[in-house]
Amino acid sequence: MDDVQVQWIEKVTLKDPILIEGLPGVGNVGKLAADYLREKLGAKPLATFYSKFLPPQVYVSEEGLIRLVSNDLSYRKAIGPGGRDLLILGGDYQGMSPEGQYELTERVLNVCAGLGAKEVYTLAGFAQGHVVEKPRVLGAATSAARVEAMKRFGVVFSRNDPGGGLIGASGLFLGLGRLFGMEGVCLMGETSGYFVDPRSAEAVLKVLTQALGLTVDFSDLEAKAKEIDRIAQRIHDSEPKAAEGPAPPREDLGYIG
Amino acid sequence: MDDVQVQWIEKVTLKDPILIEGLPGVGNVGKLAADYLREKLGAKPLATFYSKFLPPQVYVSEEGLIRLVSNDLSYRKAIGPGGRDLLILGGDYQGMSPEGQYELTERVLNVCAGLGAKEVYTLAGFAQGHVVEKPRVLGAATSAARVEAMKRFGVVFSRNDPGGGLIGASGLFLGLGRLFGMEGVCLMGETSGYFVDPRSAEAVLKVLTQALGLTVDFSDLEAKAKEIDRIAQRIHDSEPKAAEGPAPPREDLGYIG
Amino acid sequence: MDDVQVQWIEKVTLKDPILIEGLPGVGNVGKLAADYLREKLGAKPLATFYSKFLPPQVYVSEEGLIRLVSNDLSYRKAIGPGGRDLLILGGDYQGMSPEGQYELTERVLNVCAGLGAKEVYTLAGFAQGHVVEKPRVLGAATSAARVEAMKRFGVVFSRNDPGGGLIGASGLFLGLGRLFGMEGVCLMGETSGYFVDPRSAEAVLKVLTQALGLTVDFSDLEAKAKEIDRIAQRIHDSEPKAAEGPAPPREDLGYIG
Amino acid sequence: MDDVQVQWIEKVTLKDPILIEGLPGVGNVGKLAADYLREKLGAKPLATFYSKFLPPQVYVSEEGLIRLVSNDLSYRKAIGPGGRDLLILGGDYQGMSPEGQYELTERVLNVCAGLGAKEVYTLAGFAQGHVVEKPRVLGAATSAARVEAMKRFGVVFSRNDPGGGLIGASGLFLGLGRLFGMEGVCLMGETSGYFVDPRSAEAVLKVLTQALGLTVDFSDLEAKAKEIDRIAQRIHDSEPKAAEGPAPPREDLGYIG
Repeated sequence: MDDVQVQWIEKVTLKDPILIEGLPGVGNVGKLAADYLREKLGAKPLATFYSKFLPPQVYVSEEGLIRLVSNDLSYRKAIGPGGRDLLILGGDYQGMSPEGQYELTERVLNVCAGLGAKEVYTLAGFAQGHVVEKPRVLGAATSAARVEAMKRFGVVFSRNDPGGGLIGASGLFLGLGRLFGMEGVCLMGETSGYFVDPRSAEAVLKVLTQALGLTVDFSDLEAKAKEIDRIAQRIHDSEPKAAEGPAPPREDLGYIG
Repeated sequence: MDDVQVQWIEKVTLKDPILIEGLPGVGNVGKLAADYLREKLGAKPLATFYSKFLPPQVYVSEEGLIRLVSNDLSYRKAIGPGGRDLLILGGDYQGMSPEGQYELTERVLNVCAGLGAKEVYTLAGFAQGHVVEKPRVLGAATSAARVEAMKRFGVVFSRNDPGGGLIGASGLFLGLGRLFGMEGVCLMGETSGYFVDPRSAEAVLKVLTQALGLTVDFSDLEAKAKEIDRIAQRIHDSEPKAAEGPAPPREDLGYIG
Repeated sequence: MDDVQVQWIEKVTLKDPILIEGLPGVGNVGKLAADYLREKLGAKPLATFYSKFLPPQVYVSEEGLIRLVSNDLSYRKAIGPGGRDLLILGGDYQGMSPEGQYELTERVLNVCAGLGAKEVYTLAGFAQGHVVEKPRVLGAATSAARVEAMKRFGVVFSRNDPGGGLIGASGLFLGLGRLFGMEGVCLMGETSGYFVDPRSAEAVLKVLTQALGLTVDFSDLEAKAKEIDRIAQRIHDSEPKAAEGPAPPREDLGYIG
Repeated sequence: MDDVQVQWIEKVTLKDPILIEGLPGVGNVGKLAADYLREKLGAKPLATFYSKFLPPQVYVSEEGLIRLVSNDLSYRKAIGPGGRDLLILGGDYQGMSPEGQYELTERVLNVCAGLGAKEVYTLAGFAQGHVVEKPRVLGAATSAARVEAMKRFGVVFSRNDPGGGLIGASGLFLGLGRLFGMEGVCLMGETSGYFVDPRSAEAVLKVLTQALGLTVDFSDLEAKAKEIDRIAQRIHDSEPKAAEGPAPPREDLGYIG
């Protein structure tokens, strides 16, 4: 068996597509954002990546049907004259080991380079260790020009965050992407790190859709954010006050995404 | 050395065989069931799988003879006009790492596909974290038609179980099996998760034998179940009452099989 | 780099050589025995095995010279008419992971099969968890004939020991050896498991040398055993009596060799 | 993707170059020394090694630009008649696993052998577990002649240090280097093991530059050492006296480099 196995669902020809990556990670921000975008844009399944670097696991649907865990590539053709074709990568897991991270990322990039992608946006969460009322979007990029371009959409390039760099798929897609001649940007929504965070995902998507000239309705994501707020409030109310200790150290939370 | 090494014991031609998998796992239900079936049907050894993904271990028999740990494939030719040829996979261990799980499962499926298998039943235990008097058989399948077919034999397809999906060989044989064009069903016998459970294995085998139109005498398995009952009772009696704490969390038990 | 890299020191032609394996393990019994035999028989270095499955480590001699950790094969030509050529495998470590154990063992066996070896003796310790005054030698073998042959030299084939089988090189050399058509015996000297145990190594070597018709002077090994006795006694004397708790559970000690 | 991927920045022809290795480790002595030498000699980037044996991580600069973690080879042509061409290897990490250590080291050595290197100096720290006022430089080498040569520069070849040998890149470059026909020396600066230690790096570099006939200005390194002294003093002053326990056991500190 190949270490990473690609199952093609459709054959398409894309014109200069942009790759958008959002896999599970801190606050599930990247995955929430990529999945939401895929749904709202009506992106179509293009290829499935199975791999021994993912857990040996199947999910079972409510109907009792199994599905092997995977990473999944969808596409969406451009709408209108200024539009760009898109590739969206989502999935159940990131690679389970350092080697797995490299192997999976390299394979996805290889496939996307073959489809003509020269540009990549990676979506992630950035854990602050405390509740974030209005999540900012932090950035990192492969060139100074892209840094400047992203600042125009309100992205924050902070001298201190992320201090130790980015660990995981969102950084690796940029780092390995350069070996494929791809330029790119990582957008990290601030989040507490304790809950899945649709509000942070929305902040990230607002930047991304502006940058790509897309229009997306965020009401479903906002509804989900309010639901999480309610759950968080309920847990907070049920906790004895004395138990409120200091936040866990930021180092454990901030940099995986 | 090949990562997985196949030693053929015999060369056979099978007609549309069904693969039945039962490896060690929760309550050892799958292994108990597969081993019992192999014995009662008089299945013959066909191939042995050695692998570096299994522990570096030999067993020593009472006579002092060593045997390297392995997975083992047996076969049994159909009896009667409506019967089907069978392949039964048992073994000492599942693969020791995620990669090992994938590699071993892929290799066994590859061999079985070469023998003509297009259908697979995987047998496993499902830990409930408490004693189960009358174990139900939970199911998961690769198609809606198979879900319906199994319901007729009393298999329960629950909205909530198994919640997080299946981790291990029994799920992977179905998930990877589809990449080989195989359809299949996973049968999970409820069990406490604390003991090896011949009664749960019997429940699983009753469904399987009905589905396959086989007749098997379960008296030896029932005798074994009664023996385990006696051991469990003795342990229970010897425990001080105060020590009876709450059951361990189900998440640690339910999904590996 | 090859996963296992063989450096030949000499080219020899051997006649039906017997492979003797003794790597570090419980009580270091196997390594002590193999190293002692190599020295006393004046065996000559034949090949060195370097591998990424060994630690990334060099030893530094008292003179300041480095040496990369390895497994090492020596040979010794037969002396006299009834004698047999010998291959002796020692080394600094066993493979560091299950995969490493398989890969290293397979490679050594491959080399030895190429040199004509069809027979293998593996030497190991068997931890009893308590002080053993007169260590017995426990056995395991690949055939009933060898079991019987070894019983004649006092080797004990116990119904209960080793219960869970053998984990590590000494078992694997027999298990994988069979795939190379080799027959063999594992000789396990009883030991406490707390100290390196030259006395147990001597017990093992006494059986082995009898079986092979060799004469070896054990006085140096006995001197070393007495030295260890003195160290053990001193530690024992310095311990407060109350601290003498029960022996650790045997399962943790008995089966790695 | 190759396990280790080499990106060439320039093509050069070198004459009998000497390889100098300094990767992160104890007290960061090796990396500090190699980086300082590279800067002061104006060495030029030659090749970058990316690898799945390094963490899946990118660093983000203050300007927001990402850089994938790597090992990096620089070169510097000889100056003057007696000078030698140099290759300097630095990097963000050593390989993350034993296998990774072997694979990365082997690949770098392979590249350097291709460039004509037959000689290697590895730079490292040696943790003493206590503050070292005047760090000595300990040594290990591949030949007695090199041991003698290094003694002339004040390098200490101690009977007891390093006791258990060297674990990590600095040892492995010598050990594997010999398989490439390279001779070499490891220079280990004594250090506490608790801080990054520019003073120890300076001690190492003083030996190295003498041995290579180079002249390097150490004032920047000394300034850095004084800065670390101030930080250490401040931490020491702020600690309650009672908290000064015994030093941690040396075994945990001394041998990785």
